[in-house]
Amino acid sequence: MSLLVVGSVAFDALESPYGKVDRALGGAATYFAVAASFFTPVNLVGIVGEDFTEEDAEIFRGRRIDTAGLERAAGKTFFWAGRYLENLNERVTLATELNVFAEFKPRLPENYRSAKYIFLANIAPDLQRDVLQQVNGKPKLAALDTMNYWIERTNAELRETLKHVDILMINDSETRQLSNEHNLLRAAKHIFKMGPSTLVVKRGEYGAMLVDKRGVFCVPAFPLEEPHDPTGAGDSFAGGFMGHLAACGNKSDASLRRAMVYGSVLGSFAVERFGLDRLRHLKRGEIYARARHFAKLTQFKL
Amino acid sequence: MSLLVVGSVAFDALESPYGKVDRALGGAATYFAVAASFFTPVNLVGIVGEDFTEEDAEIFRGRRIDTAGLERAAGKTFFWAGRYLENLNERVTLATELNVFAEFKPRLPENYRSAKYIFLANIAPDLQRDVLQQVNGKPKLAALDTMNYWIERTNAELRETLKHVDILMINDSETRQLSNEHNLLRAAKHIFKMGPSTLVVKRGEYGAMLVDKRGVFCVPAFPLEEPHDPTGAGDSFAGGFMGHLAACGNKSDASLRRAMVYGSVLGSFAVERFGLDRLRHLKRGEIYARARHFAKLTQFKL
Repeated sequence: MSLLVVGSVAFDALESPYGKVDRALGGAATYFAVAASFFTPVNLVGIVGEDFTEEDAEIFRGRRIDTAGLERAAGKTFFWAGRYLENLNERVTLATELNVFAEFKPRLPENYRSAKYIFLANIAPDLQRDVLQQVNGKPKLAALDTMNYWIERTNAELRETLKHVDILMINDSETRQLSNEHNLLRAAKHIFKMGPSTLVVKRGEYGAMLVDKRGVFCVPAFPLEEPHDPTGAGDSFAGGFMGHLAACGNKSDASLRRAMVYGSVLGSFAVERFGLDRLRHLKRGEIYARARHFAKLTQFKL
Repeated sequence: MSLLVVGSVAFDALESPYGKVDRALGGAATYFAVAASFFTPVNLVGIVGEDFTEEDAEIFRGRRIDTAGLERAAGKTFFWAGRYLENLNERVTLATELNVFAEFKPRLPENYRSAKYIFLANIAPDLQRDVLQQVNGKPKLAALDTMNYWIERTNAELRETLKHVDILMINDSETRQLSNEHNLLRAAKHIFKMGPSTLVVKRGEYGAMLVDKRGVFCVPAFPLEEPHDPTGAGDSFAGGFMGHLAACGNKSDASLRRAMVYGSVLGSFAVERFGLDRLRHLKRGEIYARARHFAKLTQFKL
């Protein structure tokens, strides 16, 4: 079943202890769409500027990604520059230039409006809600990502939007900030009262945790000797997660667990190289092989 | 098969956001012995002062814990006071009074010397080595814990002792400090060159990770809504881990994975109440039930 994503398409300048790139294609919607397209067709809503070339658009070709919803506007594409410290967990933002993204008003092409699976990547909560309102009927599953900026500055807008989504997918510090609760189980209970029935907490090198009324499911991060660049790991995780759910068409406990594993698989590949370099060349067989590796990493018999 | 532990028996003064106790029985060897005794008989080597009462010794009674190796000396028992911050991950040491522990020279009773399973809790590395030298023949499995203090101040002694142990069981920051390597897989490779063939990294609220030549196994921490006191969690983990291995008498991959789960189970119970309050009243049935809960927490089908 096709999956709708709205979010940023961007150029990133990245520095980590493993190297440096000046202009890598990035953005949450880009990572998400590429990751999810291994599982299901993706409809992408976003905006780029005049500096977004045919060569840049290559990333979407030959994949099941529809870019009819990718608007081209006068001006420059969203640009982010950041540096990761030695441990790759901490990052310093060196520059954020919104450019065409500042005026972004997501508009869904007619054939996107029947979307049943929706991922609202990290953008302003009112824009996220606007996207939901353009969808005809109730989606089967809407998931949302956000960040400290929106939690602090547009808390009421975010709360309003959260009423309309099923899954909130954020990191530990965002979970704690939004719920005002350090303990993640208690944080989840607060968040369930805001609307979502499922909380997925992304924990970087510690993996991810899903909490819903049925309980908790944990998956570790895939141990890598040489992670190069954490940019896009969370969005690639979301792509693998939502891609699997849209493909299997249900949200049973077993499907959500598998989704967590496929999310972790895609996240783990994303960090192996700078920008989209690893996902760009990823083969479906590698995804399934790594998913089996996750089983070896976690399974035991009592 | 019986399991030898050498380490501290102590009184702790503890403060956390959940409460405060002025004098709780504690110490690494105490937590370890109580946790391990659910699985196998334990021989304990340690030292206490004149303030250690019959009532304190109650914790060892009615369990398979032999305290012939628990020396009584003139003076006061080792005392530690600490405060945990809101997140329970960070702690401030308020007082460390070595007392009788300052002159501790571990001496193994004759019937302890045939030990095949040994846990060297966190004490000076030369004392840990001294214990190994008192054991007749080669043990089947010797595991060691240590801390930043010994890594910094007695690095050469620690390196010498590490040559004689199979399993190193420390937390992430100790792993990074000892190996001078941030990435845990690369850190493990460094540590394998020092002697141990297995590294168990304790990661607090993120669980634990085992690395050996066969690969990596991860287990999450058990999600608790109200952890009260993290003191002794790592030693209780070690007790469950080594207790299971001594009981099953082998170190196959399947046994090591189960040991990681039982370690996590015992660690999770330890933090539920202050000091030894939870382990004191723990029933074997609760251990098996929680181990099955760990399966639900981690298992998936592709």
